[in-house]
Amino acid sequence: MSQLICTGLSGIPLVEPGDDIAALIAGGLDAGGIVPQDGDILVIAQKIVSKAQGRYVDLATVTPGPEAIALGHKVLRDPHLVEMILAESNAVVKSAPNLLVVEHRLGLVMANAGIDQSNITHEHDLDRVLLLPLDPDGAAAQLRQSLAALTGVHMGVIIADSFGRPFRLGVTGVAIGAAGVPALVDMVGQPDLFGRALQVTELAIGDELAAMASLVMGQAAEGCPVAHVRGYRSDAPERPASALVRPREMDRFR
Amino acid sequence: MSQLICTGLSGIPLVEPGDDIAALIAGGLDAGGIVPQDGDILVIAQKIVSKAQGRYVDLATVTPGPEAIALGHKVLRDPHLVEMILAESNAVVKSAPNLLVVEHRLGLVMANAGIDQSNITHEHDLDRVLLLPLDPDGAAAQLRQSLAALTGVHMGVIIADSFGRPFRLGVTGVAIGAAGVPALVDMVGQPDLFGRALQVTELAIGDELAAMASLVMGQAAEGCPVAHVRGYRSDAPERPASALVRPREMDRFR
Repeated sequence: MSQLICTGLSGIPLVEPGDDIAALIAGGLDAGGIVPQDGDILVIAQKIVSKAQGRYVDLATVTPGPEAIALGHKVLRDPHLVEMILAESNAVVKSAPNLLVVEHRLGLVMANAGIDQSNITHEHDLDRVLLLPLDPDGAAAQLRQSLAALTGVHMGVIIADSFGRPFRLGVTGVAIGAAGVPALVDMVGQPDLFGRALQVTELAIGDELAAMASLVMGQAAEGCPVAHVRGYRSDAPERPASALVRPREMDRFR
Repeated sequence: MSQLICTGLSGIPLVEPGDDIAALIAGGLDAGGIVPQDGDILVIAQKIVSKAQGRYVDLATVTPGPEAIALGHKVLRDPHLVEMILAESNAVVKSAPNLLVVEHRLGLVMANAGIDQSNITHEHDLDRVLLLPLDPDGAAAQLRQSLAALTGVHMGVIIADSFGRPFRLGVTGVAIGAAGVPALVDMVGQPDLFGRALQVTELAIGDELAAMASLVMGQAAEGCPVAHVRGYRSDAPERPASALVRPREMDRFR
């Protein structure tokens, strides 16, 4: 009988630039009475990885160019913020009032380049925004390594965000960084119950793990920025979250 | 500490038209040693709901019209199958070689109107296809009621499928039917840790529950067509899976 247990770690303190997230997580596992095992997976809110990396920008220091001013007018957003969104992006995918979907420099197609203003200030520092982590797959690999050093076991790591989607309402958890897990699993050649090859060829396991974790982390994610998952088993090879990004030339919806 | 436990029920026999799925699930819970509790959630693969409803079509009995013949040529699919896809759909959203995305009559934007040919035949009956369940929200409500009668407790029910997505590779579990759960949760007015209103307003809880279940059900879903979830708590009002469908006029990607 296949069983997954997903536990939100509630004891993680607010993260500051330079903090050692692996140490905070090891402490959170300990405080939660969880003895880590090889093959466990930690799903980590991207926001705390960004914070530890110090990915803050003070919008007052940003000078919007003409494109950001025009686009800000169109999408009804502060041009300083739009300037930062453009700086983080390869291309604008869709813009309309209250909607700015871009291709982030990581290839992720997402709203506002992942920049948001919630849960990031200590008090009334309203002009400070937080960018996505640098190199989330690399950050996940580093965390995996640090956690192995701290705990003696090899756990998978996913760095998760929440994305909206075309066609469906509501956001769901997605993986933007991964290490030690098969973020994308290829089912080609695996027969169904009756020996016929499956038509569906790839499973977005990284995104499904992030979605599960999102259910225990809630949306005000720093209240519970890390979830521990036990029981996921797969023979599929490890693949980073970048494998989940649909290459632009394979995408019929932009 | 918030914790979810998701268990795949492995003892469910192959489903035939007219079968009582609620009874099969109650038996599966029993066989798995799970004593159901109020608030537990059952995630059920749409395929067994369709089978119990007898939603089979023999493609040999289908006569493709001119639109299906032309579209079949374009998307490289059997025109008999394309005729059925069109019959199940309100509109073609995107077509290209090996790609046919439609708006299903339920409003769902999905590949091939959810019709597929894997896991549905007993032996070599290759022309038989299986359509989506009729009224999946209603079917979920009925299952919820039948399960309450059988077990004495009120469990949520989700009927799940796997969809591909624009922008990202791989399929993920989604909810196409729901009862007794808040498939979509509105976060408007809920402050973040620092008292600022969250920018993200809706959580696709139904899809996240389906994604989690998909991790234990695997893709050859009749091997394990039902997952039992314990530990999800929400004060949000119940909403059906139809609430997850983005209304066409709110959709910028078609």
